[in-house]
Amino acid sequence: MRVVIIGGVAAGMSAASKLKRLNKDAEIIVYEKGRDVSYGACGMPYFISDVISDESKLIARTVDAFKDRGIDVNINHEVTNINTEQKTVRVHQLTEDAVFETPYDVLIIATGAHGIRLPIEGKDLNGIHTLNSLEDARNLKPYTMDSTVKHVTVVGAGFIGLEVVESFLMQGKKVTLIERENQLLPAYDKDILEPVETMLKQAGVQLLLGQTVQAYEGDQTIKRVITEDKTIETDLVLEAIGVRPNTAWLEDTPIERLQNGAVIVNNQFKTNIKDIYAAGDCATVPHALLGQQPVYVPLGTHANKGGRIIAEVMSGLDHYFPGVIGSNQLKCVDYEIAKTGLSEKEAKHHDIATKSVLIKAKNQAGYYPGAESLHVKLTVQKDNCQILGAQLVGKKGAALRINTIAVAIQQKMTAQDFALLDLAYAPPFSPVYDPLLIAAQQIKCDKKKG
Amino acid sequence: MRVVIIGGVAAGMSAASKLKRLNKDAEIIVYEKGRDVSYGACGMPYFISDVISDESKLIARTVDAFKDRGIDVNINHEVTNINTEQKTVRVHQLTEDAVFETPYDVLIIATGAHGIRLPIEGKDLNGIHTLNSLEDARNLKPYTMDSTVKHVTVVGAGFIGLEVVESFLMQGKKVTLIERENQLLPAYDKDILEPVETMLKQAGVQLLLGQTVQAYEGDQTIKRVITEDKTIETDLVLEAIGVRPNTAWLEDTPIERLQNGAVIVNNQFKTNIKDIYAAGDCATVPHALLGQQPVYVPLGTHANKGGRIIAEVMSGLDHYFPGVIGSNQLKCVDYEIAKTGLSEKEAKHHDIATKSVLIKAKNQAGYYPGAESLHVKLTVQKDNCQILGAQLVGKKGAALRINTIAVAIQQKMTAQDFALLDLAYAPPFSPVYDPLLIAAQQIKCDKKKG
Repeated sequence: MRVVIIGGVAAGMSAASKLKRLNKDAEIIVYEKGRDVSYGACGMPYFISDVISDESKLIARTVDAFKDRGIDVNINHEVTNINTEQKTVRVHQLTEDAVFETPYDVLIIATGAHGIRLPIEGKDLNGIHTLNSLEDARNLKPYTMDSTVKHVTVVGAGFIGLEVVESFLMQGKKVTLIERENQLLPAYDKDILEPVETMLKQAGVQLLLGQTVQAYEGDQTIKRVITEDKTIETDLVLEAIGVRPNTAWLEDTPIERLQNGAVIVNNQFKTNIKDIYAAGDCATVPHALLGQQPVYVPLGTHANKGGRIIAEVMSGLDHYFPGVIGSNQLKCVDYEIAKTGLSEKEAKHHDIATKSVLIKAKNQAGYYPGAESLHVKLTVQKDNCQILGAQLVGKKGAALRINTIAVAIQQKMTAQDFALLDLAYAPPFSPVYDPLLIAAQQIKCDKKKG
Repeated sequence: MRVVIIGGVAAGMSAASKLKRLNKDAEIIVYEKGRDVSYGACGMPYFISDVISDESKLIARTVDAFKDRGIDVNINHEVTNINTEQKTVRVHQLTEDAVFETPYDVLIIATGAHGIRLPIEGKDLNGIHTLNSLEDARNLKPYTMDSTVKHVTVVGAGFIGLEVVESFLMQGKKVTLIERENQLLPAYDKDILEPVETMLKQAGVQLLLGQTVQAYEGDQTIKRVITEDKTIETDLVLEAIGVRPNTAWLEDTPIERLQNGAVIVNNQFKTNIKDIYAAGDCATVPHALLGQQPVYVPLGTHANKGGRIIAEVMSGLDHYFPGVIGSNQLKCVDYEIAKTGLSEKEAKHHDIATKSVLIKAKNQAGYYPGAESLHVKLTVQKDNCQILGAQLVGKKGAALRINTIAVAIQQKMTAQDFALLDLAYAPPFSPVYDPLLIAAQQIKCDKKKG
């Protein structure tokens, strides 16, 4: 079995490694367009802040380590086309500018995504960056380490946007954060994020919500960012306004894609074409709360699981991905922010009637030193009180707590049933009623489920 | 409706408060034998260590505060008998040594428990303490603050034993810890606790496992503790060998009790006698993993829930306690220790065939500074891979993670299904595969459930 994997980061190398473990004799060839494989992209904000000073720490395994395990990894190799009839791919060797065709029995598309750029005046000035690949991080870091770069403008207040705000603050920069929506983290509800907004302002961040960048100005290098209302003098711009799947090269193939270009896969990461799989930031995942419909959620955790399941399915195991529910977490300065399931806003978008509570409680026994406020928003389905989503914000205990609710959502529990669960309690870690239980108690449901 | 509540700490005052909220007109009379009500008993180890210097911080609400809300709280009142036919209780007013009878429509027994004492030679020497009531804590604290008390012997390595070892170390004492079983925390499996054993030894604790105290020696005050093998020179002893329900006074009543004296209740905290409820450390709780059989698990979290459910049931709400599964957590020096469900040992005791894995993984992305090892033991039912229990030990992220598995156990999930859950991921909080997912992946099950 000759397996060709296109893309050598999370999904691709997870598939390669797992496949080699399950199937020693498989011939596994990886083509990676860039020069880096198997790195922890989620660690890049911490490389930028120099919390992680050495980029090699982000490398899970080197090309040579994969080769030692019998996986044929080829960097600087871009796959430019697939012939799904003849089962071949066309490969462009970038350093030697050579092109060749090579056959596959099974193909795995794991080409990732790239940062969307604003198509505006001044977009080609120097000093405007994205942060989606290790190469991006490498390009950006000298500027963050340069003390003459005093002011940074971050465009987009999503996960990466908020994480790099922390990075730039740690590097002693003045920061302006611009977000098109009228709130941070557009997938969340605005109300739960008020403490984070306040904290960012107190940390000196200029927060421009509900504004868009109209133009960049400068003289070769960026000097000014122009929004509807403001002109911001700046030394560096980081655009973090979302990503787009690296799938434009599939345009002439019969492989089905979403409107944004993500390859559509089923719950075994199979595309519509026989023997072609896809996973990671170039592909969809099924959403467990939305009837398994394919959605685009480009996160490292799904990429890793996708690669693994592809290898298992290819090896004859009857494994299925149960789908995502929208769990995520991030650190921003001294806040932990986490979400699972649907926000109130997302549920409304899908025409699901909901009830929500937003409570504030201590993360640990109030009498135990160091207790902090934890904000919990819990959203349930109005008709049967089934838990749909939770959002947590606090200085301590938000990130790890979210997974407790994540399991409940995946198990379709009601708030009433959740409220009486036997959760562990000790004063340094939780009040006698965990904030999650308090939130569940406070939801007043019309009736019990079922 | 005249409601008499016997005992004014966790279960009793939870019932009183909730009942008053649900039913403004209820006449609620509380008789508390001691002089303290509504205190956080689980905080006492931190009062002893002086992490909490002021005992008033442990008081959730004072007698006067309850009276202001229309709850008639009477301290120094011991109930000595119940006439279940005539529906009266006999009350002993302790400060004035007066006795009276008073009627009830509904009775709630919430008398708590007391520390078991070793019935051995020298047991009446000064300087031998227990830590089960605020009065105990008040008596003990002057000794822990006294720098001439240099060596403390803790007898019993359960929750309180391990928590006070931390307290005494913080107070600069030399500590000897004696445990009858050949391990710490007898409800846990020995193997998962090895890092804690090592840590305690490194912290200078003399650990005597598999030994019992044969006698105490001294001259009015404790001087020496004698075990099978050792004689320990000591200045203070804390016995933490378990508790016994405060229910001896019920002996002449028809109220059914377990062999240890715990009042047997159903899933609405009703005893076998009409209009008599019981909850907290004097009563049983149903065990959700053992066919709802009544078990004795004296923990504050169950006491609070029990009191609350009694109030709800009395108010006509159709609420049921789903039962405990054995969730607990504690801090010991720099370790978090947590357990939920059954340990391998407990499952064996109940003749359940199991499979277990014990893994070590990082609590967060390995490249993110400050990552620590997390030890996870996961136990499943052998025939269908249903998760029965988990035990976690580590310096960071053990305590809060346990609740993620606690939900899965209460939902009867299999390890295979758990392994693919959408849990949140970010480098400061978790590796890309959470240690819980890694453990679930590594369990090799015979087949899927169902």
